[in-house]
Amino acid sequence: MSGIPRARTIEALAPVLRAGHLSPVDLLEDCLDRVAQFDGRLAAFVALADHARDDARAAERELRAGHWRGPLHGIPIALKDNYLTHDLPTTAGAPGIGIAFPRIDSYAARRLRQAGAILVGKTRTHQFAWGTTTPPTRNPWAPDRVPGGSSGGSAAAVAAGMCVAALGSDTGGSIRIPASLCGVVGLKATFGRISRAGVIPHSWSLDHAGPLTRCVADAATLLLALVGYDPADPGSVDRPVANWTLALDQPIRGLRIGVCRNHFFDSNQSGVEQAVEAAIRDLAAAGAVITDFRLPLLDFGLGAIFAIELASSAAYHDRSLRDGIVAHFEPDVRTLVEMGRLVSGADYLKAEQYRHRLARDFADIFQKVDVVVGPTTPLTAWPVDTPSVAIAGAMESVLAASWRLTYPYNLTGMPALSVPCGFDAAGMPIGLQIAGRPFDEMAVLRVAHAYERDHDWSDAEPALTAA
Amino acid sequence: MSGIPRARTIEALAPVLRAGHLSPVDLLEDCLDRVAQFDGRLAAFVALADHARDDARAAERELRAGHWRGPLHGIPIALKDNYLTHDLPTTAGAPGIGIAFPRIDSYAARRLRQAGAILVGKTRTHQFAWGTTTPPTRNPWAPDRVPGGSSGGSAAAVAAGMCVAALGSDTGGSIRIPASLCGVVGLKATFGRISRAGVIPHSWSLDHAGPLTRCVADAATLLLALVGYDPADPGSVDRPVANWTLALDQPIRGLRIGVCRNHFFDSNQSGVEQAVEAAIRDLAAAGAVITDFRLPLLDFGLGAIFAIELASSAAYHDRSLRDGIVAHFEPDVRTLVEMGRLVSGADYLKAEQYRHRLARDFADIFQKVDVVVGPTTPLTAWPVDTPSVAIAGAMESVLAASWRLTYPYNLTGMPALSVPCGFDAAGMPIGLQIAGRPFDEMAVLRVAHAYERDHDWSDAEPALTAA
Repeated sequence: MSGIPRARTIEALAPVLRAGHLSPVDLLEDCLDRVAQFDGRLAAFVALADHARDDARAAERELRAGHWRGPLHGIPIALKDNYLTHDLPTTAGAPGIGIAFPRIDSYAARRLRQAGAILVGKTRTHQFAWGTTTPPTRNPWAPDRVPGGSSGGSAAAVAAGMCVAALGSDTGGSIRIPASLCGVVGLKATFGRISRAGVIPHSWSLDHAGPLTRCVADAATLLLALVGYDPADPGSVDRPVANWTLALDQPIRGLRIGVCRNHFFDSNQSGVEQAVEAAIRDLAAAGAVITDFRLPLLDFGLGAIFAIELASSAAYHDRSLRDGIVAHFEPDVRTLVEMGRLVSGADYLKAEQYRHRLARDFADIFQKVDVVVGPTTPLTAWPVDTPSVAIAGAMESVLAASWRLTYPYNLTGMPALSVPCGFDAAGMPIGLQIAGRPFDEMAVLRVAHAYERDHDWSDAEPALTAA
Repeated sequence: MSGIPRARTIEALAPVLRAGHLSPVDLLEDCLDRVAQFDGRLAAFVALADHARDDARAAERELRAGHWRGPLHGIPIALKDNYLTHDLPTTAGAPGIGIAFPRIDSYAARRLRQAGAILVGKTRTHQFAWGTTTPPTRNPWAPDRVPGGSSGGSAAAVAAGMCVAALGSDTGGSIRIPASLCGVVGLKATFGRISRAGVIPHSWSLDHAGPLTRCVADAATLLLALVGYDPADPGSVDRPVANWTLALDQPIRGLRIGVCRNHFFDSNQSGVEQAVEAAIRDLAAAGAVITDFRLPLLDFGLGAIFAIELASSAAYHDRSLRDGIVAHFEPDVRTLVEMGRLVSGADYLKAEQYRHRLARDFADIFQKVDVVVGPTTPLTAWPVDTPSVAIAGAMESVLAASWRLTYPYNLTGMPALSVPCGFDAAGMPIGLQIAGRPFDEMAVLRVAHAYERDHDWSDAEPALTAA
């Protein structure tokens, strides 16, 4: 559609919307056209907001009257179906099993509406955010492949241009994994930065709310729109906020980049490894100082994340377990929730102690480096209904492999972002993961932005076909 | 002994030691004489430091040379037998069962030595700090009665003048309960204020290190000597420190005192209730503004503290459970540690969620009040080998009753102090508990000090008899 910048980013759209060269109504209609065309095949949305058109018209009136609310004004944004909204039902991927979630706005929905965003609809989540495939959503780059998860609907919707940005949630990688698999940017800020009030909990000490976007600058814009202390979230932290968008362009010359050579490089697909090594070389060429390190404690993290995630999930679903509702969950999710009952309090505590030690070890590393980079996922998008794939010559469960490189940063609460860094031989997107010290989102965003500026993948777009 | 002020407090002793009117050697000898005389009966000490006399002589030389380290210089202080020391073995009340604790100084021992204190010995703890009777230690006020616990040895030693002050640890009330039962001051500062590095853990999120003293000013002095950030304790908090000792004398006129009328006044012995109500009236007469309130959530705290304490204990003793060493624990402690295995991770998490809600409810209360006062324990010291006592007409387990009013402040991490507030009909001491908002030890100490100044119980001393 004429007037819509090809990049479809907030960064590109906000000035044209503000200047009146594009109407929010036309932008929304274009998104809805794409939903109509492609979502039969992609199944990224579970619901569209009836009055999004009214909201777009209201934004159009405000913008015409010169009342610009900021860069999100008039931007169509989708919410994962575990964010409560007053105007749309929330199902957390589990409709029709007798759980009625409140019809109120989550903190994030409220903030986005205040910023003038047009909330277009709810995107599909792996049931209760407990998985990395998000059936029946498909990957826009290859509709026979998964989009990743659990925020698979949000990633697919953004990648297919059915919305400009979307929110997801990340407990063990659920923003970054689908971002990596669908070729978009996914950001999990520091634990406590963005309120999760009104997001259906999975694991209260691991859950993060955050954006999936088409570029790094858009992630910074959404982060700025969403940060801030919220007493309604017990994990929310009252910390000063920098204007990340203004500092994005600072050069990275001299910035110290760490590469953790164990765990993150133990077993990756060759295409992933090649792309990430190339990205590291390019960052070095841009003036960053690369330091390899090893963090032996990472070898023991899986038990910790499982203990915490399983126990937390069983605690959250306790009533559903007792009432027999869990029997109607999807089999994979049911298994995990029921297994959660078996985690002992003592094992949970040992997992928490592991977290403390891991965070301390990372803090030592961050004496010497400013960010840590590596792959986001060891594998690219895999075919649907495939329980295991070959990685580095060995068959591995896709669930086990897909979150291996993301969950460490849920345990530590460090900010972590996935930015596209190329494609494998099958044309599937690859993600570069950049993590920073707690509350230093700035360094993460700067490195991601510098990398993105030097690597414009926007010529490559998914070849979408109507259903 | 001539030259020793009758009060035997740091406040009274420090100026005489500094001025050279009393030698640290003579003060120590007097304490050791009292140990020799009374500890056969009281059994407060498990070990005395061989070279305490050398340390006292060294302090004497330093003081004579005009090098005054501060108010603790030359003061005999005892440590509960769960503080590691390089010069004395640590047993945590469990000698001879095959657990060898390191012979290194705990953070607190190190700080006290640096301040010039004479570490006289280790005091008896209820095994692994898991109980409130501390056998075989006896109460100086009535040797047929318990001293409370788990820091019962420290409380008895201070009450009997066998040392000037002592350190204890408090997971559910283990400093405040024996302080209350033995008629001394016990302070549990805010969680994170005093490093627990080198204190045998019981429940890492509930454990507090802190002093037992003969007056409020001494508690402030020891707090000042022990506070500060210590990276070796994962719970340690980096917060500014006020000079509490200087501000102790500020009048409490206008200070807002809350009284929680549920839970804390549901079932207390009449002597306790009368003394505490009288103390509240006296604080009002001194100009404090009294506000009654109710906090319904307190009715559900027992399950939370049990879930956390049991699970934590099982996690800490995991190796001893697997190796069969727990079978050699005292039967009461063995039962609790083995029960800890039965707490599920989900239940543990619900307990943690309860804590957050309780802390939030208290935070609301602290919008309207500056401190909360009430009884420290519902009952006074009970006869040894008595599993249950009559309280307000009903028989109740002494374990259940003794920590009922103290554990809420372990769940919330708020500072709480017990100060003597009179005696019951049997002549047993009664404790007034004063709690404050997190990191506001100042308000707690000020109220305690104001109360103590107007109520001099020092004419009443335990009538000690040699064994």
